[in-house]
Amino acid sequence: MADHSVTVENTLQVLLSEKKYTTIRDIMVTMNPADIAAVFSGVETEKLPLLFRLLPKELAAESFVEMESDQQEALIRGISDSELRQVMDELYVDDAVDIVEEMPANVVQRILAQSDPEMRKEINEILQYPENSAGSVMTTEYVKLSPNMTVGDAILRIRRTGVDKETIYTCYVLDNRLLVGTVSVKSLLLAPNDLQTIDSIMDTSLITVTTHTDQEEVAQMMSKYNLLAIPVVDGDNRMVGIVTFDDAMDVMEDEVTEDMEIMAGMTPSDKTYLKSSPVDLFKHRIPWLALLMVSATFTGLIITSFEEALAAQVALTAFIPMLMDTGGNSGSQSSVTVIRAISLNELDFSDLPKVIWKEIRTAALCGICLAVLCFCKIMLVDRLLLQNEDITVLVAAVVCLTMAITIICAKIVGCSLPMLAKKLGFDPAVMASPFITTIVDALSLLVYFGIACALLPGLR
Amino acid sequence: MADHSVTVENTLQVLLSEKKYTTIRDIMVTMNPADIAAVFSGVETEKLPLLFRLLPKELAAESFVEMESDQQEALIRGISDSELRQVMDELYVDDAVDIVEEMPANVVQRILAQSDPEMRKEINEILQYPENSAGSVMTTEYVKLSPNMTVGDAILRIRRTGVDKETIYTCYVLDNRLLVGTVSVKSLLLAPNDLQTIDSIMDTSLITVTTHTDQEEVAQMMSKYNLLAIPVVDGDNRMVGIVTFDDAMDVMEDEVTEDMEIMAGMTPSDKTYLKSSPVDLFKHRIPWLALLMVSATFTGLIITSFEEALAAQVALTAFIPMLMDTGGNSGSQSSVTVIRAISLNELDFSDLPKVIWKEIRTAALCGICLAVLCFCKIMLVDRLLLQNEDITVLVAAVVCLTMAITIICAKIVGCSLPMLAKKLGFDPAVMASPFITTIVDALSLLVYFGIACALLPGLR
Repeated sequence: MADHSVTVENTLQVLLSEKKYTTIRDIMVTMNPADIAAVFSGVETEKLPLLFRLLPKELAAESFVEMESDQQEALIRGISDSELRQVMDELYVDDAVDIVEEMPANVVQRILAQSDPEMRKEINEILQYPENSAGSVMTTEYVKLSPNMTVGDAILRIRRTGVDKETIYTCYVLDNRLLVGTVSVKSLLLAPNDLQTIDSIMDTSLITVTTHTDQEEVAQMMSKYNLLAIPVVDGDNRMVGIVTFDDAMDVMEDEVTEDMEIMAGMTPSDKTYLKSSPVDLFKHRIPWLALLMVSATFTGLIITSFEEALAAQVALTAFIPMLMDTGGNSGSQSSVTVIRAISLNELDFSDLPKVIWKEIRTAALCGICLAVLCFCKIMLVDRLLLQNEDITVLVAAVVCLTMAITIICAKIVGCSLPMLAKKLGFDPAVMASPFITTIVDALSLLVYFGIACALLPGLR
Repeated sequence: MADHSVTVENTLQVLLSEKKYTTIRDIMVTMNPADIAAVFSGVETEKLPLLFRLLPKELAAESFVEMESDQQEALIRGISDSELRQVMDELYVDDAVDIVEEMPANVVQRILAQSDPEMRKEINEILQYPENSAGSVMTTEYVKLSPNMTVGDAILRIRRTGVDKETIYTCYVLDNRLLVGTVSVKSLLLAPNDLQTIDSIMDTSLITVTTHTDQEEVAQMMSKYNLLAIPVVDGDNRMVGIVTFDDAMDVMEDEVTEDMEIMAGMTPSDKTYLKSSPVDLFKHRIPWLALLMVSATFTGLIITSFEEALAAQVALTAFIPMLMDTGGNSGSQSSVTVIRAISLNELDFSDLPKVIWKEIRTAALCGICLAVLCFCKIMLVDRLLLQNEDITVLVAAVVCLTMAITIICAKIVGCSLPMLAKKLGFDPAVMASPFITTIVDALSLLVYFGIACALLPGLR
């Protein structure tokens, strides 16, 4: 299936150059909006309105929603006011808001001018909610029922008003604007008797979010409770909208991308990789690189202050990268595991002692195992194979002891910093590899030189 | 809402110790299956069957599905065969399969013995599909319609048979077991005329997966096309089942966790963090730690071979951690960005030249910026503030030049290795921070000593 759109795309390109518009139309009506949008992304901007006009009204609007924002903009600029009005009539409010948010001011004005007053009002309301809140991703179009309606009435109402709703499968039972229950279309259809009242079959164990709930939490709740849509209420518990599962899936994807970017020491970006210019990428990458580079001054200072020890035992220098990297890797393993567990709501600040104790035991196992392995490696490779006379058994012991202690420190730092960050209200993802590595580098060097000065003769 | 289950949990614990079972029942029937399962997880194993028997049949089965597998096992061992049969009667096939997959053999035998023959057959069929394939996560219970049925007939059939189906909202139109179209309940309900035939309103632009499609791809397609359920077909295009959106959301979460674990140098684990013992964690973490530690031998060798240069210019050693870390961070930024773009299907191997060229330009910007910053830092902090006489302007120039070149190398390595891994059929996530860091460490040292020997007098 994935290859389907690619080959059709080529066919359509050829047909377009041959101006066979009827054939193009016949092909496109069999296609899915997401695939049509993919075809549009390969077409020159001037030809977009031409292709777009070939589509039936509803499919045109659905494909428009799936397009990239720069192409939406080009298309809006290329079509007439009445055509734009037709598109706006077909859009759901939440999709319209997504589009408005990406457009420059003059295009936004044209969009709002061509929306009907009801929609214009709803777009403006949603635009006022904070970014990434449930309010900003919800739609205000949902099926409302009253508690004293019969099942038959409810089905009739859905048949009459459902066409404009993004989902009809969960209906919301309101009493004086307050949400009192939900009814699924499944339970309406399967109800044994059409004369039963809604309040006798509705589900009253309500799961709601408020307009200010973070979108990530909204998506997690929908996943936890397997919901097709979640109701959004205001501060007075009055129902204002719903968030649907397709938006929740998009939110999950975006939040993961953001977490991964932060964990790799980048400020998060809204643009896809191929759409980002080198200057965009530079701006998102340089802050952390610069900060971490400057913090490496401390590691430099530690080395400088042990310069004489290093000059006396040059062999010690060769093990610095291995000790720092192993420490960094150990710490990242713990921090990434804990960051992910926090974002899946598996861990809470009160678990900190339990987590640290678990990490210490894990670190002890890893530390002993790697220290033994490292000792064997040094003896076999560096001493026997490479005949490096500087590396005595005592030097090997210093390196392996440092290794074990560093791993324990690294895992404690790695697991506790993300939890502390969360507690203090920061994003735990900041406490991932790059940050942990910088701290662990300094720690491992201090341990290394401390042990070396204590054990090796002539270094004190 | 998130706190709701916590406080109710405490109330229920108290009521349980006071043996107020009617009150417990009254509270639990108002609750959601996921929250009931959370309450169960805090209860002693012996009391589980007691609590479970308080629940109405359907809610009991729904809560059972949401429980952790060790508790499901304890519960199955604590209830009678006829009670188990009642639970199995209420389960959907895909949930039953998930449970069977986690249980030891003797429990599986009891489960299968208490399932009806139809379900037993379907469980066995699904169990035969490879792990993580669409076949292994699908359910075989969906609504089947024929193309020549009327809309009225179709609604009647849904009302008669829908109770056993996981979703009734998308119905599948089969002609001789071949999938020919889909109809949503929305379009059935909104059809202007009950006598229209299904084939006149069905959607024939089919999006399907095969039983062997990877579950990650299934979830991505559902997200891309905003599907509630996706049909699964066999090699001969005959329909065998559907994957529903709730399973797709779970798959997305699991796959992200797996990617993050691999990217932090761990082998992926099925257990949650708090359920993993230190020995479990050790087993998942030690392979990469050991491998990366041994590969650091190369960096050690490079330092050893430049030992004399280092002895002559001890100041050079102090900058090794900063150069290695900055290189590692730059490389990780590129690799993580590219890995994520690959897993979102934004990048393809044919984009490699474009990606490398973009990274080179980004790296040049980062490199120049950091080199200038680093030069200022060395001059101000190390020379002026710390009065370190060893660090000459020439040494600073060597460090900064190395910095710029290392960043460019690191970003090229970081962006191209994940794409190469994908091309060769490996998981690109392996090419993240730990692996890239090890390679970049060696590269940065080679560049460093190469430039130092070329520019600094007395090192040749």
